[in-house]
Amino acid sequence: MAPPTPRVVVPIEVKKKPWEQKLPLHNRWHPHIPHVAEVNTGEVFRVEMVDWTGGAIKDDDSAMDIKLLDLSITHCLSGPIRIVDSDGIAAKPGDLVAVEICNLGPLPGDEWGFTGIFDRENGGGFLTDHFPNAAKAIWYFEGIYAHSPQIPGVRFPGLTHPGVIGTAPSMELLNIWNERERHVEENGVKSLALCEVLHSRPLANLPSTKGCHLGKIKQGSVEWEKIAKEAARTIPGRENGGNCDIKNLSRGSKIYLPVFVEGANLSTGDMHFSQGDGEISFCGAIEMSGFLELKCEIIRGGMKEYLTPMGPTPLHVNPIFEIGPVEPRFSEWLVFEGISVDESGKQHFLDATVAYKRAILNAIDYLSKFGYSKEQAYILLSCCPCEGRISGIVDSPNACATLAIPTAIFDQDIRPKSSKVPLGPRLVKKPDIFKCSYDGSLPTTRNLSATFHDSN
Amino acid sequence: MAPPTPRVVVPIEVKKKPWEQKLPLHNRWHPHIPHVAEVNTGEVFRVEMVDWTGGAIKDDDSAMDIKLLDLSITHCLSGPIRIVDSDGIAAKPGDLVAVEICNLGPLPGDEWGFTGIFDRENGGGFLTDHFPNAAKAIWYFEGIYAHSPQIPGVRFPGLTHPGVIGTAPSMELLNIWNERERHVEENGVKSLALCEVLHSRPLANLPSTKGCHLGKIKQGSVEWEKIAKEAARTIPGRENGGNCDIKNLSRGSKIYLPVFVEGANLSTGDMHFSQGDGEISFCGAIEMSGFLELKCEIIRGGMKEYLTPMGPTPLHVNPIFEIGPVEPRFSEWLVFEGISVDESGKQHFLDATVAYKRAILNAIDYLSKFGYSKEQAYILLSCCPCEGRISGIVDSPNACATLAIPTAIFDQDIRPKSSKVPLGPRLVKKPDIFKCSYDGSLPTTRNLSATFHDSN
Amino acid sequence: MAPPTPRVVVPIEVKKKPWEQKLPLHNRWHPHIPHVAEVNTGEVFRVEMVDWTGGAIKDDDSAMDIKLLDLSITHCLSGPIRIVDSDGIAAKPGDLVAVEICNLGPLPGDEWGFTGIFDRENGGGFLTDHFPNAAKAIWYFEGIYAHSPQIPGVRFPGLTHPGVIGTAPSMELLNIWNERERHVEENGVKSLALCEVLHSRPLANLPSTKGCHLGKIKQGSVEWEKIAKEAARTIPGRENGGNCDIKNLSRGSKIYLPVFVEGANLSTGDMHFSQGDGEISFCGAIEMSGFLELKCEIIRGGMKEYLTPMGPTPLHVNPIFEIGPVEPRFSEWLVFEGISVDESGKQHFLDATVAYKRAILNAIDYLSKFGYSKEQAYILLSCCPCEGRISGIVDSPNACATLAIPTAIFDQDIRPKSSKVPLGPRLVKKPDIFKCSYDGSLPTTRNLSATFHDSN
Amino acid sequence: MAPPTPRVVVPIEVKKKPWEQKLPLHNRWHPHIPHVAEVNTGEVFRVEMVDWTGGAIKDDDSAMDIKLLDLSITHCLSGPIRIVDSDGIAAKPGDLVAVEICNLGPLPGDEWGFTGIFDRENGGGFLTDHFPNAAKAIWYFEGIYAHSPQIPGVRFPGLTHPGVIGTAPSMELLNIWNERERHVEENGVKSLALCEVLHSRPLANLPSTKGCHLGKIKQGSVEWEKIAKEAARTIPGRENGGNCDIKNLSRGSKIYLPVFVEGANLSTGDMHFSQGDGEISFCGAIEMSGFLELKCEIIRGGMKEYLTPMGPTPLHVNPIFEIGPVEPRFSEWLVFEGISVDESGKQHFLDATVAYKRAILNAIDYLSKFGYSKEQAYILLSCCPCEGRISGIVDSPNACATLAIPTAIFDQDIRPKSSKVPLGPRLVKKPDIFKCSYDGSLPTTRNLSATFHDSN
Repeated sequence: MAPPTPRVVVPIEVKKKPWEQKLPLHNRWHPHIPHVAEVNTGEVFRVEMVDWTGGAIKDDDSAMDIKLLDLSITHCLSGPIRIVDSDGIAAKPGDLVAVEICNLGPLPGDEWGFTGIFDRENGGGFLTDHFPNAAKAIWYFEGIYAHSPQIPGVRFPGLTHPGVIGTAPSMELLNIWNERERHVEENGVKSLALCEVLHSRPLANLPSTKGCHLGKIKQGSVEWEKIAKEAARTIPGRENGGNCDIKNLSRGSKIYLPVFVEGANLSTGDMHFSQGDGEISFCGAIEMSGFLELKCEIIRGGMKEYLTPMGPTPLHVNPIFEIGPVEPRFSEWLVFEGISVDESGKQHFLDATVAYKRAILNAIDYLSKFGYSKEQAYILLSCCPCEGRISGIVDSPNACATLAIPTAIFDQDIRPKSSKVPLGPRLVKKPDIFKCSYDGSLPTTRNLSATFHDSN
Repeated sequence: MAPPTPRVVVPIEVKKKPWEQKLPLHNRWHPHIPHVAEVNTGEVFRVEMVDWTGGAIKDDDSAMDIKLLDLSITHCLSGPIRIVDSDGIAAKPGDLVAVEICNLGPLPGDEWGFTGIFDRENGGGFLTDHFPNAAKAIWYFEGIYAHSPQIPGVRFPGLTHPGVIGTAPSMELLNIWNERERHVEENGVKSLALCEVLHSRPLANLPSTKGCHLGKIKQGSVEWEKIAKEAARTIPGRENGGNCDIKNLSRGSKIYLPVFVEGANLSTGDMHFSQGDGEISFCGAIEMSGFLELKCEIIRGGMKEYLTPMGPTPLHVNPIFEIGPVEPRFSEWLVFEGISVDESGKQHFLDATVAYKRAILNAIDYLSKFGYSKEQAYILLSCCPCEGRISGIVDSPNACATLAIPTAIFDQDIRPKSSKVPLGPRLVKKPDIFKCSYDGSLPTTRNLSATFHDSN
Repeated sequence: MAPPTPRVVVPIEVKKKPWEQKLPLHNRWHPHIPHVAEVNTGEVFRVEMVDWTGGAIKDDDSAMDIKLLDLSITHCLSGPIRIVDSDGIAAKPGDLVAVEICNLGPLPGDEWGFTGIFDRENGGGFLTDHFPNAAKAIWYFEGIYAHSPQIPGVRFPGLTHPGVIGTAPSMELLNIWNERERHVEENGVKSLALCEVLHSRPLANLPSTKGCHLGKIKQGSVEWEKIAKEAARTIPGRENGGNCDIKNLSRGSKIYLPVFVEGANLSTGDMHFSQGDGEISFCGAIEMSGFLELKCEIIRGGMKEYLTPMGPTPLHVNPIFEIGPVEPRFSEWLVFEGISVDESGKQHFLDATVAYKRAILNAIDYLSKFGYSKEQAYILLSCCPCEGRISGIVDSPNACATLAIPTAIFDQDIRPKSSKVPLGPRLVKKPDIFKCSYDGSLPTTRNLSATFHDSN
Repeated sequence: MAPPTPRVVVPIEVKKKPWEQKLPLHNRWHPHIPHVAEVNTGEVFRVEMVDWTGGAIKDDDSAMDIKLLDLSITHCLSGPIRIVDSDGIAAKPGDLVAVEICNLGPLPGDEWGFTGIFDRENGGGFLTDHFPNAAKAIWYFEGIYAHSPQIPGVRFPGLTHPGVIGTAPSMELLNIWNERERHVEENGVKSLALCEVLHSRPLANLPSTKGCHLGKIKQGSVEWEKIAKEAARTIPGRENGGNCDIKNLSRGSKIYLPVFVEGANLSTGDMHFSQGDGEISFCGAIEMSGFLELKCEIIRGGMKEYLTPMGPTPLHVNPIFEIGPVEPRFSEWLVFEGISVDESGKQHFLDATVAYKRAILNAIDYLSKFGYSKEQAYILLSCCPCEGRISGIVDSPNACATLAIPTAIFDQDIRPKSSKVPLGPRLVKKPDIFKCSYDGSLPTTRNLSATFHDSN
């Protein structure tokens, strides 16, 4: 009696480019990008999505597409979607929309994904100073499981989620973003103690007309020119949600998003079959095309009721969410610690970013003892369901971060043993992920004590 | 037939001061602090511990003891314990000791704990700029559960663990610590972008003879004078483990600690009935006296086999651990996000510490809508089993951190609702935790948009 | 590069009858039913299925279709599927096939299901003496969740699984089945102490030509006549697996099925969106059409290697399985006990069936105190993810069985409270499930002490 | 400020006999056994307990104590404990007492336990027809873990619980028990279809003055003589709770017990370090002495409010309970199925007891392929945290039961594999549990097809 099948409000044809889709995609945040669909509260609807690069990365055996990727076109998002209640009244600024993820998955016929390491001169990543060259692994899905021919001996169930889900900003909020991010960019490396450690460039991703797609707004039109110059890039997560890359936003979870413009203008994309906390290699999840089945409620006046602004304006808020009940279940974890002392031995002050970097470096080296190349381990820790925790943040001067890896994803026992590790059962090192050369001139970070391991 | 009861290798009398115990405690890391006990591999043994302050904090209704605490005496540790194998051969530098936590708990007759907020001029904490005044809550234990008369409506099972567990450093490692931490201290606030945000002082905790206890070494002796001047404070976690404050080091977990001196010289203390990730208020766990039942193995040559140094020397390593099988089980979590934009609206570059601070501030404000004072919420998030995650660390310029709170610890439903939050069922705000005045002159951080809430 | 999308080896058109499908379905077990598809080991393939009644039950507001259902046509199964290895050699008797459930779900466009109570004269169920009349509830799916307009205040994630999955029996095994089941049927009620308690009729479901479908074998042909007379009904689970109704055979699980005929001849059907342990109302799961994505391995000689026969022949074996990693996660359970004393007060000897019946009756009565009719509760406990345990089976004369209900599926707190249960928040009793009258003459069981509740 | 340490209301000296304890124990249910202690609602109190045999089984290398055990003395219980509210008013018939298990464990200095198989002529067990001879395994505890020198290669965390916890019956309820159990005993084997399968004798355990202990009532007194003749044995669980052997009644769980006499008269005992569902070998848990820390509430009129009688009187009720939050966590399970066809090949009608027996027999044979003797496997499945489920109970004529074993308790991988099982890594069969001869004359059940395995 009830119509049970979700209405497809944003359909995707996988073979087509993002701008050739029936409902054109967009890759910027701006209040004036027109909505392409409208949904009612209580209705279960389906949104389909291209992968975040819009199909630029191929299921082939070269990482050149990763190396040369034009990052100005990311993320290709589906939407905006206008949300109205059962009386036909749209969500209004100051409301919350509660978006429930009823279901999600890959698009039928497109059950594969990729994980990449970006070149240091084009995107970089959390460990780009250690791994400056581009690389790629392809993953195939067997229902809930993913496996990669390039990373043998590993298979795991996906905690699938959208990397990007958010509402449109108001002009006021957009201006705040542009101003504060320009400030970082303009003041440069010298102002930032952390940047020595992170090595990423650029420091921010400011608006650019290059690669800009604004949905229904015609490219090259006056309106397009105006908006493209001020529309925010989608790279960082912000007050509207956006690219938060929270791996637990999976089936059954519920996100409470603030509304800044009439209709809320919900957009989503960047589907991840699986991701580790931090998505460390930047193109670090198992990136794929996919679909979401969503259901929305409007909590009228919910921003004031539930969100306290944290900053100079009432717009400085963040989403809240609830975790769903069907996450993959692991019971055994091997955990690596890191403290805020960097690879040169320098002490940093309660810096969780440095501590997490060291925990990950420790884990990568450890896994390399079991037959994996360090690049394989770097990619694996980017996309497998590992957990990154801030364990201690008050014990001056050391922050302590931990990285927990579920041991069941390996087909060998990776725990330390009191007997000598047998050489036999270790994974034979070939095959490896697809790698490019690094042709840049930036120095790499050497771990001074680990020279004999660096042949990996 | 087998002797099943663990041998008590370090006994504690709760009523006595740390230095009056049968086996005197110590509160510094140094290779020359003599061991007070010896254990064999495979043997289950029991170590008892005073609380980290050595009994300085009382089960009474004033926070003055927190405000005035002499931090130079922390942490009071039990040990060192020398570890030998079944052939009587001691653990040697380069080995790993695998320490299994078979059991742990409060000391019989002392089933209570405390959580404190330190005064900004004496210890501080992660949010000391928001909460500069000292405060205290007392917790009582009912078996696995803790509850506090000062924070009504909340009860939770403990994920009990030792805040401090570590091996003695070698002189070489100790010198590395002292040098790098002195560097932070001497270069001061100006060199540290993060310090603006964290507001904690001092920047490091350098060796001090004041308050120093060195176990069996007689106070005031020549040897004591020499060691006290160079022995490391126990505040930060370091290469030897130490005060890592990892809440998951509970029953059934196994820690692989590097060995730097003959016998390993294991020390432990700072028992926590429960702690949230980050232990944010610094005296933030439910601090208590307690016991550990441990079993050790020696992995000969394990440092080289399993730990890759990450820094200029082979000593720059970190412990590894496995999580135990009996952690409390929660299935519903409410999650708060934070990005690396601070309370003034300033953009920071991929700074997980700032992002986590904002996530916590968001959570505190949220909980204050359900009848709690902000100080109650600050203390609660320090000690309840909440999880702090680094969710996104590559999306320049914003890091994204999340704080997940298990909803089952509250006796009210704290999730957002589409109907107006009823005023009735909210917790009546009294009682509150015990608070002191802040008499210092450092400025506090104002959340510019939240003025009307600040009356809390 | 790899073909990631599973090949559909048995397609279904939802609007068509079971015997009109492109690959005709079958509803009996027999070695001579020809296979309709062939798959290779290692290949991920897709099998689609009608619901177990082949579409006889409608999404409408009457239970007459349940009351009058022709049970001779159940279960409509997809297959048989022949399994061959990468060398093209078929599975052989004595092998095991390891069938991994990579994925499963409802068929797109058909996202609904039903749960029924059968009339006592037509099917019955575990509590048919208490609930002799037919009834029906319709469930709609919102991604992972199911809800029913007829059972308000309840919503839960599905632990979706095939009720029936099995291999074809050999003639020898088929003869064993028919002989032993005929023995039960022929010796009748008087020989069975349990039957007094269970009240179900018939005692067994012997071969019948009525309603028989044998796939590609033409109805009415000589071959059909011969096979139809001896082919086993699919109602009970047996040595070949079959209708075991094990709710944990969900995503990621792996079933080790014995092979009795060349090619294994795997058949499956009876998809359940969700089911409680026992599937107590017989049509007790949320019954639906659906799909499986499967991957098979052959373990050559695996029956002898892994399965010990338990009975007079080497064919008396049972399947083994492993549980998948993505089951819904609950942490709070309310548990009801039952002992082997029946509703008349009569003591039974270590009878787990009686004990489980009493535990369920206790639970139904309990839920009726929270606003549900007893029929609603009976249906709910048939299909929600509740767990039925044999807790004690040696304490003469009482077996003890338990039924654990996850409390999170209700939108009210159903736990006992020391304060009076408020009348207000209880669920208002309307709506109810759709019910028919019971027109038979068999006596119903009265719970002698519960008269005042029986108005429910 | 609050007195945190639980008051010991029933102390035990481990070296003393049950009747020599300061507060004498009892081993019968009767309303006139006087309470030995009184507790208030809200108070956390401690009850200590001998093991269920009162110390008759020793930590030695012979099973003769099991073979010759005088079962008339079991179970030795601590209590009765009278429960009064904060106004000093006792629990009254018709109330519920909510008993929370705040903590529990072995008694310090007595950290060991035993699991036994009883001789077929003295106690028997679920598989006594297969294993008629007495046997014993000793377990040692290492904190949360247990291991046995007699069952190598296995170690698991305990889900510790009291096997017996219940309230005193009223005279009316006691009479109901005695009458219905006498009926079973008197009508004998012939009336019971199940008894053919179960083979246990006696059919019931009727009152006996032999071995009877009634707490403070002097043995041999007139009062003692009268009560001993009518007091119920504690073997079966009943309406008052009692020996339900529910393994999930562990830390943090809460039991709602009906009250039949003034003060409730709570008794408890039979501590189990760990038990599998069913406790199949009868002396099948890891039996130990131990303690409980409990907290009680009284729900006035709770029996009528929450429990519907199921039988001829308002006394025919069963307890309800909630499961605690700290159960050991496993994620991988190997599951064995059984259907209601017995070892002779005979079909039984929906008999969950027969189905569970077959599932267990399947599991025992399976484990015997990995180096264990069948007796080792029988004992292991009695006491390890395995789960016994009633999976299908409506598919005539076969009930389907399942037994799920957590694979993490073994130090070898026990899952089926497509490659030949290597002979090397299998456990070498010695050592074994301690066994006695069976000197009786009852026939054993032969599994007709498994002769070559029976050498185990």
